[in-house]
Amino acid sequence: MDYFQYRNEEAWCEEVPLEKIAAEVGTPTFVYSKSTLIRHLEAMKKAFSHWETLPCFAVKSNSNLEVLRIIFSHGFGADIVSIGELKRSLIAGADPRQIVFSGVGKQDFEIKMALEHDILSFNVESSFELRHIAQAAKKMGKVASVSLRVNPNIDAKTNPKIATGMYSSKFGIVETEVRQLVEEIKKSDSLCLVGVSCHIGSQITDLTPLREAARRMATLAKDLLSEGHELKHVDMGGGLGITYKDEVAPALDAYAQTLIEEIRDTGLRLLIEPGRVVVGNTGILLSRVIGVKQTAEKNFVVVDGAMNDLLRPSMYDSYHEILAVKNQERVMNCDIVGPICETGDYFGKDRNMPAMDEGDLLYIRACGAYGAVMASNYNSRPRAAEVLVEGGRFQIVRSRESYEQMWSAEL
Amino acid sequence: MDYFQYRNEEAWCEEVPLEKIAAEVGTPTFVYSKSTLIRHLEAMKKAFSHWETLPCFAVKSNSNLEVLRIIFSHGFGADIVSIGELKRSLIAGADPRQIVFSGVGKQDFEIKMALEHDILSFNVESSFELRHIAQAAKKMGKVASVSLRVNPNIDAKTNPKIATGMYSSKFGIVETEVRQLVEEIKKSDSLCLVGVSCHIGSQITDLTPLREAARRMATLAKDLLSEGHELKHVDMGGGLGITYKDEVAPALDAYAQTLIEEIRDTGLRLLIEPGRVVVGNTGILLSRVIGVKQTAEKNFVVVDGAMNDLLRPSMYDSYHEILAVKNQERVMNCDIVGPICETGDYFGKDRNMPAMDEGDLLYIRACGAYGAVMASNYNSRPRAAEVLVEGGRFQIVRSRESYEQMWSAEL
Repeated sequence: MDYFQYRNEEAWCEEVPLEKIAAEVGTPTFVYSKSTLIRHLEAMKKAFSHWETLPCFAVKSNSNLEVLRIIFSHGFGADIVSIGELKRSLIAGADPRQIVFSGVGKQDFEIKMALEHDILSFNVESSFELRHIAQAAKKMGKVASVSLRVNPNIDAKTNPKIATGMYSSKFGIVETEVRQLVEEIKKSDSLCLVGVSCHIGSQITDLTPLREAARRMATLAKDLLSEGHELKHVDMGGGLGITYKDEVAPALDAYAQTLIEEIRDTGLRLLIEPGRVVVGNTGILLSRVIGVKQTAEKNFVVVDGAMNDLLRPSMYDSYHEILAVKNQERVMNCDIVGPICETGDYFGKDRNMPAMDEGDLLYIRACGAYGAVMASNYNSRPRAAEVLVEGGRFQIVRSRESYEQMWSAEL
Repeated sequence: MDYFQYRNEEAWCEEVPLEKIAAEVGTPTFVYSKSTLIRHLEAMKKAFSHWETLPCFAVKSNSNLEVLRIIFSHGFGADIVSIGELKRSLIAGADPRQIVFSGVGKQDFEIKMALEHDILSFNVESSFELRHIAQAAKKMGKVASVSLRVNPNIDAKTNPKIATGMYSSKFGIVETEVRQLVEEIKKSDSLCLVGVSCHIGSQITDLTPLREAARRMATLAKDLLSEGHELKHVDMGGGLGITYKDEVAPALDAYAQTLIEEIRDTGLRLLIEPGRVVVGNTGILLSRVIGVKQTAEKNFVVVDGAMNDLLRPSMYDSYHEILAVKNQERVMNCDIVGPICETGDYFGKDRNMPAMDEGDLLYIRACGAYGAVMASNYNSRPRAAEVLVEGGRFQIVRSRESYEQMWSAEL
């Protein structure tokens, strides 16, 4: 099965005992497929097999320790954005020499801990950050490996909330400032320039802006190499989109070819930071119908999952497919909503799906990325359990939060 | 000082030792003012003193146990939307006979627990819910007190994500269905109709839709009374707005007068469910500047708080005033952003404020409502501490989350 054509999750219902999970673990529950995840990891490695490439998994998209263990055990590195993510990655067995540290707000204690672990590279996003890294490294008698995260001012043609590669965004170093920072690195005994990097946004479905960004990174890298900087890599960030509804996501091979074509001349190792594309379609949110409310205008299927479990529909107006676990002949048009007291608490609107009744199970697709990691306790709701399935078996990889845990810090 | 004119939080810097809090508790930290909270509670009671009124605090807006303790100790009841909120309310000393249970997705175990505690009333939002309450009460040999939460199809003129009183929303019972549910209640030995209720939305700054809603509720209540139903109250919900930027929030007295005028003829007790108006302006989010990133286009003040701490700007494009703790003569125009890897992670855009430098403290106003309750661990960031100040002293009312707590459920 082609990696990107992995849409037909009817397989879930055979492979994964959803009723059993609901009965034993309760609902709502995030359910991840180990075999799908491994298939994705292998497909990613295969697509890039003709160039030396280190895929650094974007831990922010799914930081479940067991999910991370699987990913790192397949040779992936980590793209982290906080020391919380560094700690998670280390617990899950990541090799510190395969960790890159991104983000616009690295604090001194975070820089220090990353240096202690000799991570592969800091993706430096500003001059103040560079100064802090140099200071910390000097104090520790270390040389910090840094990449410059360049803001290429390219429109990634995605949701403005997750587009990152334009000058109006807080991310990256504008090209006019790159030279100045290169000089600073050159002058410092505590800094070593090991790469150039960029990240133009998330959920990208058009390879054109990615190609343009790669071309510019390659030009910059060649300039720096010719000036004697011993660069080790070009980091092209993440952001490759997946299919939630009818987006046509680029084929993985085309993605790899685009990047490799552009950076080939540099002769450098390629780093990528995939997140959504690795885990997005490996997970679902399983939920049970509390009741069906029929009005003259609309049918509302009220389920026990809510926006505190999966924020994406409320936050980004994201579309997620919703399927019934048991099929019914009768079809109904409905909104699928949660119990939270906000109109924005919904999973889907005006959906045609099998008629749902109280106690029925349904699942929301493509919840493996930016699902559980964004969960909250809003409306004093305990956070959902997370389950990993492998064949017909499953294991709980995050236990459901108890009520008492929610307020233990307040007693 | 008039309750609604509570804008001048410069008082904070005198009353509240913000530097001390930052030094001892760290940042980001939610800071609540006990004296402001008490002033708000007393103002609310005073405004409604000429009519028998029970204000039920909307626990979803701020569920910190110490905040709740103060609120309940001043005679307020609770408006809850989950059993998590019921548990919190009981721990914080709420009188179960002053608790109303709202929300479109009450589950059987929640209904059962609420019945065990003999709460004042269920705000029933659908026929399926009514059926479940009747079944549970029958099984327990109890009579459940219910109010019908009517959807009056009124435009509250607020953010669509938090408008709740229109037919296209999942909330309430449409007027044409009310009669049918009244008949069902009449026929049941396990149900007793004690009230009518509505809630048309949040952050309402225009009293006209509230007056219209109150008028309709009063008409319905009088009809039901004349038919022999022994109603006890009219519940007008919450939703009164506060000033975040330049909204002109209605005066509390005008609000009280509007509701009381309309329901006076019923002779019934008035219930209201204030949340934001009670706690919104009692809290700030205190944060420290990590660094200032200056580009040709923009200045970015990167702070250690982020959208995982305060979601409102990202989620609703909400405006929150941002002030420096120490004033500076030099002024800068800037975006105030957090370290999270999303362009949507910001607190304010294009703000003119005193020039900020690394290590400086600033605070975000009006974070007492829908602040800490919506926090997540996104980007593996531990959740902020919460502090309550009284005069020059402060106490930690929620300790900062540790890294280890974030993944304890995954080990």
